[in-house]
Amino acid sequence: MTEKKGYAGNGFVHVKNPHLALMDEDILYHLDLGTKTHNLPAMFGDIKFVCVGGSANRMKAFAQFMHKELGFEGDGKDVKDICAGTDRYSMYKVGPVLSVSHGMGIPSISIMLHELIKLLHHAKCRGVTIIRIGTSGGLGIEPGSVVITDTALDSFFKPQFEQIILDNVVVRSTELDKDLAEELLNCSKEIHDFPTMIGHTMCTYDFYEGQGRLDGALCSFSSEKKLEYLKRAYNAGVRNIEMESTVFAAMCGLCGLKAAVVCVTLLNRLEGDQITIPHEVLLEYQQRPQQLISIFIKKRLGLHNQNNLLDNAFFLSN
Amino acid sequence: MTEKKGYAGNGFVHVKNPHLALMDEDILYHLDLGTKTHNLPAMFGDIKFVCVGGSANRMKAFAQFMHKELGFEGDGKDVKDICAGTDRYSMYKVGPVLSVSHGMGIPSISIMLHELIKLLHHAKCRGVTIIRIGTSGGLGIEPGSVVITDTALDSFFKPQFEQIILDNVVVRSTELDKDLAEELLNCSKEIHDFPTMIGHTMCTYDFYEGQGRLDGALCSFSSEKKLEYLKRAYNAGVRNIEMESTVFAAMCGLCGLKAAVVCVTLLNRLEGDQITIPHEVLLEYQQRPQQLISIFIKKRLGLHNQNNLLDNAFFLSN
Repeated sequence: MTEKKGYAGNGFVHVKNPHLALMDEDILYHLDLGTKTHNLPAMFGDIKFVCVGGSANRMKAFAQFMHKELGFEGDGKDVKDICAGTDRYSMYKVGPVLSVSHGMGIPSISIMLHELIKLLHHAKCRGVTIIRIGTSGGLGIEPGSVVITDTALDSFFKPQFEQIILDNVVVRSTELDKDLAEELLNCSKEIHDFPTMIGHTMCTYDFYEGQGRLDGALCSFSSEKKLEYLKRAYNAGVRNIEMESTVFAAMCGLCGLKAAVVCVTLLNRLEGDQITIPHEVLLEYQQRPQQLISIFIKKRLGLHNQNNLLDNAFFLSN
Repeated sequence: MTEKKGYAGNGFVHVKNPHLALMDEDILYHLDLGTKTHNLPAMFGDIKFVCVGGSANRMKAFAQFMHKELGFEGDGKDVKDICAGTDRYSMYKVGPVLSVSHGMGIPSISIMLHELIKLLHHAKCRGVTIIRIGTSGGLGIEPGSVVITDTALDSFFKPQFEQIILDNVVVRSTELDKDLAEELLNCSKEIHDFPTMIGHTMCTYDFYEGQGRLDGALCSFSSEKKLEYLKRAYNAGVRNIEMESTVFAAMCGLCGLKAAVVCVTLLNRLEGDQITIPHEVLLEYQQRPQQLISIFIKKRLGLHNQNNLLDNAFFLSN
């Protein structure tokens, strides 16, 4: 069974669940929000950009960065966690931009996406673009490069996500929005500090054995077998490896959300497994997708008039 | 291909990875620890009990609770997060007890377990017992019941975990330690406030479609199909559903760690999907596995002389 994508003309976020309309109340349990306890249209109705990423600290830093980039008053340091009542996820809102953490791995991001998509639906949001900004392992490219995903692949290099529903396996498409990927690549041309490219992203269920690492608690294969696998991945068009893109592409596609995945690479997996870069370099790498998304959002909002010197001054002071 | 369990006589934690011994340094990236930057035997060599759970706040509260239960000076409020340099996981140490958060889902707990098992190995720990204390959905049992898992099952009710290694699927056993489960059940007989039982636990890759919930952003099945599936699970011996137990059982078994899963149920899934219990009730439920594990640890350490009134006084004040 294969499902098709759900883009429609009106720009609303679609939930594909006939049961939801029959529910008197919807508790978004892991976000600590609900339709009876919160006025979701008033809180979120103006959202146009949703940025998601694994780390709560990083998504807070992104919200503070966007606060500054969009020219709001103050330094944004006191931006409030909307999900403060739970430690499962963190959520920050800066004007039309929502910044949400999703933890690590397919199950963790999938819980957040179910509740986020219902939130955008209940809030009657229209024309929302959603972007995952993350970290990843690179394949055959310089560490610090940024990869914009065109298609997410599973561990077998297939462009699909297998969702278990009851005890059936349903296959979903993991293609991302091609126009959005091109628009982001165009924005990257204004940044000269690091390379950005479009490529396939492989999404795995774990970080060690599933990504061919030799340094986990368990490892049953040789260095040669590992390299043979990673080279096959490279030849299939994979430029980076992470742990959330397939389910992100599948769910956003089905719900009519234009979606992109933009990840920086922390190392070249053809050369090693351990992440040994100094903390300061790691922090600078993590800011690269944020820098790119900031340019994209400002262009979309017609606010792109700040120069890179200002941006860099902000980064250096943080 | 099926792998066998790795219990051995000397009580050490086994890493099953010949490459590790050849590494000059091991950076436990997601824990922000390493063999060159930290003296792991000095920091962790005395660990006998490792308790893991999804939420960082809950695992901090458990460490504070054990601080009090083990009779250490002070209120334990200032217990330090050993992984403070990263927000991926939190870790607290109270005497021989280590309390670690693992986030939600199989991939998230698997990253933590790889690095935790290497940590215990590098620290030369012996005779370690590891227990996951979590929350879950119940099947046909009263909300607030505590389930001690004998075997973790996948979505197809099979006692196995499928690990993808490079592009092969390796099947691992998900049986847990029977003697440990019985020992925990015996400890539960001292607690009269809530029911505790041994049963199978089903572990899924997501919270909504994968657990037959009707309230996600996507749902393609009827209420009848959902109930038919959940009843089949009940008839296969499943008493609760969560998202980490199969990989936890598989990895701990392979590495010679005696392991248990003890989860409280927040609702009866035969009666609903949404978690609607008040926050105070939820907090009290979450403390139930902690209460049980505290009795177990104190018995093992020969410290079990406090009465339940004291325990309850602590809970009420928190």
